[in-house]
Parts: sequence; C-alpha cells; structure tokens
Amino acid sequence: MSYLADHIQAMRGYTYGEQPSDLSVVKLNTNENPYPPSPVVREVLANLDLDELRRYPDATSSALRDRIAAEYGLRSEQVLITNGGDEAIRLVATACLTPNSVLISTEPGYSLYLVIASVLNARYIPMQLGHDFRPDPTAANRCIAQHARLVCIPNPNSPSGVLMSVDEVDAFAAQFPGPLLIDEAYVDFVEPDLKHDLVPLLSNHRNLLLLRTFSKGYSLAGARVGYLLGEESFISALSEKVRDSYNVNCVSQAMALAAFSDIAHARETWDAVRTERQRLTTALRNGGFNVPNSQANFVLPQRNDRTSMSATYERLRMRNILVRYFKTPRLHDRLRVTVGSSSENDAFLEALFTC
Amino acid sequence: MSYLADHIQAMRGYTYGEQPSDLSVVKLNTNENPYPPSPVVREVLANLDLDELRRYPDATSSALRDRIAAEYGLRSEQVLITNGGDEAIRLVATACLTPNSVLISTEPGYSLYLVIASVLNARYIPMQLGHDFRPDPTAANRCIAQHARLVCIPNPNSPSGVLMSVDEVDAFAAQFPGPLLIDEAYVDFVEPDLKHDLVPLLSNHRNLLLLRTFSKGYSLAGARVGYLLGEESFISALSEKVRDSYNVNCVSQAMALAAFSDIAHARETWDAVRTERQRLTTALRNGGFNVPNSQANFVLPQRNDRTSMSATYERLRMRNILVRYFKTPRLHDRLRVTVGSSSENDAFLEALFTC
Repeated sequence: MSYLADHIQAMRGYTYGEQPSDLSVVKLNTNENPYPPSPVVREVLANLDLDELRRYPDATSSALRDRIAAEYGLRSEQVLITNGGDEAIRLVATACLTPNSVLISTEPGYSLYLVIASVLNARYIPMQLGHDFRPDPTAANRCIAQHARLVCIPNPNSPSGVLMSVDEVDAFAAQFPGPLLIDEAYVDFVEPDLKHDLVPLLSNHRNLLLLRTFSKGYSLAGARVGYLLGEESFISALSEKVRDSYNVNCVSQAMALAAFSDIAHARETWDAVRTERQRLTTALRNGGFNVPNSQANFVLPQRNDRTSMSATYERLRMRNILVRYFKTPRLHDRLRVTVGSSSENDAFLEALFTC
Repeated sequence: MSYLADHIQAMRGYTYGEQPSDLSVVKLNTNENPYPPSPVVREVLANLDLDELRRYPDATSSALRDRIAAEYGLRSEQVLITNGGDEAIRLVATACLTPNSVLISTEPGYSLYLVIASVLNARYIPMQLGHDFRPDPTAANRCIAQHARLVCIPNPNSPSGVLMSVDEVDAFAAQFPGPLLIDEAYVDFVEPDLKHDLVPLLSNHRNLLLLRTFSKGYSLAGARVGYLLGEESFISALSEKVRDSYNVNCVSQAMALAAFSDIAHARETWDAVRTERQRLTTALRNGGFNVPNSQANFVLPQRNDRTSMSATYERLRMRNILVRYFKTPRLHDRLRVTVGSSSENDAFLEALFTC
C-alpha cells in the first residue's frame, strides 16, 4: 500500500531555480531585486520585542492589510496577505478546482501552475502564447470552450517580460466568466509612463484577482510575503476557509509593512532596474540577440540564428554566472536573465560575448 | 456561477483562538509558552544581513533540518521543516487524501483536522476517546474497518493533555497499516521521568510521521516553524511535490536554529511550565474540579457537578483573563487553560474562585 494518493504518486514536483550558498556567484537566475530592502527593515529587526515571538502572529496580518488597502483605495476585506505569492496561487487553486476540472495558464509562463494543478488532481491546459508572448484575441473564448474553472496569467509574462495592457486584461475579464488570477509578481518594474494599473478593474470584475509580492519589488524574497486583491466575498472565502490560520509570521509582517511604508526606497530600486534593463536589452540586441520588450526585471535573449542556448548556459555557469535555462521546445534557444546590479550585468555581458 | 468549488462553498473554516492586541490581557487561551525565547534569537535578528532578505531563502531550510536530524540520530532526508505545524498537517493530508477518502482524528482533539478534510473534500470520521481521553484498544482496527486513508492523533491529546505511551503508539502503528500522523505539538512538556520518546519507533514503522513545533516548546509561535519526522521517501514526496517551494522565510529559519541550539534555555521553560502545571492541577482539584493528568502546557478543569463553564468563561473574560471554552456536548463543562507564568496562574485561580 502506498501512503500517497495515486495522483500525488504519479506527479512531478516544481523545479525551482538554484539557490547557491556561495555568495560570490553572479546570481541572475531567480529574479531577485539586486538592491537591498529599505533600511527601515533593519530597524524593525533591531526593535522587535522578543516577547512578541512567543505569541501567535496576527492571523490576518491586519496592520499590513489595512495599509495596503488604504494605498489602493480598497476595503481591507479585499486584501489577503500570504506566505509569498506561491501561497496565494495555491489558495486560489485549492478554492476553485476539483479533480479533473481545468486550470489554464500561459505557455510559456510560470510552471508552478502545472504543479499546483497536479497536486489537486486537476487538468492543466496551456494557453499557447503567440511569437510576441501575448494571448491572441480568441484566448478568452477558448478558455470557455475548454471549460476552464480557473485561468491564471502572469503579467508581465514570465519569462518574456511582455505586458498585457489594462484594456486587454479588461476585455479578457469581461469575456471569461470564471475566476481570473493575474499574477503581477513583476508589476513594480513596469515603465511608469505606461500608467499601467489593474486595480481599478476590480470594481468592474468580481472574477478578477490580482497577485502581488514583496519578493521582487521590495527586495524581500527571503521574507515570504505576497498578497491578493479581489472581491470581498472571494477574498474572505480564501482567507477563512482555505488559508492556514497563521500563515505569515510576525517578523515578516512587520518587515513588509516597513518596506511598503518606505515606498520611495523601493521606487529607487525600480528605476535603477529599468535603467539597467534598457542597457542590457540594447547591448544584447546590438550583439546579435532578439530580445522581447520586457516590463519585468528580467530579459529573454534569443540568438538571431535560433541555436540552442544550452552550451552558453553551461559556459556562463562555469564562469560563476547563473542564469535560467528552460529546456523546452519553445525556450531552448533563449536564456532568462535577471536584471542585476550594474556590475553584475557587466559581468554577464562580458562573459556572454566572450564565451 | 460561484467561483468556489461546491465543497469549499459548503464548508466552514477553522475557528482559531482569539489573539487580543491588548497585551494586558492574561492570555491563557492558545497554549503559548509564558516565557520568552532564548536570548540568542535576539542576536540572530540583530546580526541579520539585509542582503540576505533580498534573496530567496534556503528552500529546504537545510541548516535547521541537518541540525534536527543530527539531534535525533536521523538522516536529513527524514526531516521536513514547515511553516508552523499547521502546514505539516496540511501537507500530509494533501498528499494522502482524495475526495471522499477518510481522515480519522480523535474527538476531542484538534478541530483543524476536520477543516483540512473539508478543504480536500474528504470525509472526517471522529475517533471517540473514552472518559480518560484515550483511544480504546480496538481503535486501530476500527480505523481499518472505516477505510481510513490517514489517521491523526494529537499526543499529548489536546485539550486534555493526556498522553498515549510509546507502547500504545507502537501497537497502533503496527495494527493500522496506513499513514499515522502523531501530532506532538506539546511533547516538550512531558515529564522527563516518563522517558517518552517516539523517535525510535520511526525505524520500525514506515507509516509513522511525527509532528513537532517551535511554537510552544521554543516560545516561537510568532515565527511559524514546525517539522515532520518520518520515513525518507514519504518525507521527500511531501517536500518535493506538495510543499510550496520556499515555505519558511529566512529569518524564521535562523531563529529556530538558534533556539534549537540553546536547548538549555528551552528546557528551563519546560521545567517551569511543569512545576506550574502541577500547582494549577492541585489547586483546581482542591477547589472542586476534576482535572485529567496533563502532560502538555494546559489543563482541562471540569466542575465536579458537571455544570456548564460557559458563564465562568464569560466572567473570566470580563476580568481580562482569556481561556478557551469549547461549546460542545463533550467539553461544555470544561475550560482549557494554558499554563501561564506564576503570576498569570495566580490571577486565573483568584478570578476563578471568586467569580
């Protein structure tokens, strides 16, 4: 007798990016922010009352939730704080899916969606993106025809960084009647001139959920804090029924609140990332690579001759530069490269063009 | 169209104990350790490199995992670090249960088990404990007859504190062939003279999982760190397939490692809790209450006349003393009272006998 349910026995887990303990590695593989979090986070740690650790944390992270709600002009009941963005995805999938029901997400996209569907014994159907890494205009109707119970779209897309506009998301949410999760893990890095803001759509689409995270935009990947924005009864069902009661520890709640309150610091890091993103993109294009316009903190260069990047990935790795290589038909001729600090990007470019 | 799956729509969430923000409350309702964590935890916080927060945490909490494995003479692959004990329960249930399959847990026990079964659309069947809060000798065979896919036993039992011995657990694990989760959240408070240690049973029972937590024994409820011990392939399936990739943040990993390394500090708190537990038990028995022999950090007084404790609970609450009252046929004539500090226990006893 196996102790595991058959579908768990049969499935494969998520392959996360390598996290080397060697800090000398130029780490451009998992889209961390290259700059440290706000110095007020340090104060939070220094001033934490040890006695607070003894007690359970605030179950709903209410101070952080209230602060985020106020920032976006939402009610606190429309905000759910999670143990990183991954928990938010899991909660939504757990609440919406049943065995054999259909989860649709973009391909390429975030492979965790397939894994989470597998854990729930649900069916995963890819939404194949075009060469421009966008869903075509019939995508929402196809989701309906495929009986999707949940559609999840990373926007900006990972791994390309391509952004669906507010109007495109608006149209999708209007066409597809079921729950639509827009995974905005990288939204902080979008060019401000685009005035890209999906939050106002929440008032027109009860089926829309927005996922954000402190991991990238606030340099707190180590703290594990994300959040969902959505319609009140949807959010409260996720929070009160599916979420582990004390899902976010008290230190991370306090650190995220401090980082969110020093948004000026975070904005400086976003500006710097955008400047470096442009520099990387230009250098790569000048060097014979095709690079989609990224609105995220990574770029996805492809050799103009479409040859595999496998050997390049390995050679970079030998030179202590870690990027992400996905061995799939669609992505084997590309690398996903996190926008690092200026010197990290220099090291990457130098190695790429000499190896 | 509801966005939620029918079984989620229909279910009720977990009711967690109140977490008042008013720190003047004598808080004896959620079994926190009355003493602060080791002072080395403070040093961890003070010395944390902000740059570490920027990066994803160690996905498998390997330093902590290795340390725990070494302490218990296990392989690291037999240890899984979780975001509090609740995550451990959820992971095991998610991996083992399918819709309509059966989860059995003790009644009374930890009501989260019912909620987790509901989230997974599984069936919950209570294992009714005797008046002595123990499973009867036929319990394991009854679990087989009821087609249990997973059996979960809090030990020491909550809310009574009654302990199943090593031999009893050994016999149960031998009789019941499916996965058996022993939830040892309170095991640190067991009388050392009993030499109670379930870890050696792991080498004889591949179906056995032990759950531990830093919440109570190490005064780190706010940090959310728990762990599972079990057979290697079982643990690795939970870790690699069902667990969120970065489930424990880097600060909590470091705090738990520091606390575990200063076990002398933790032991002092366990000794103090045991001394106070004995004092509370004696005072309550002398005052007309029936109190089971608790091996946990709480006691479960029952008035000798079996009258409801509802009004007493409310009166204590009016006097700023918070204990746990469960309005069920089995428990309505009892209160679950966390063993607090000496002065907290005095305040409770004084209020109980005068209100």
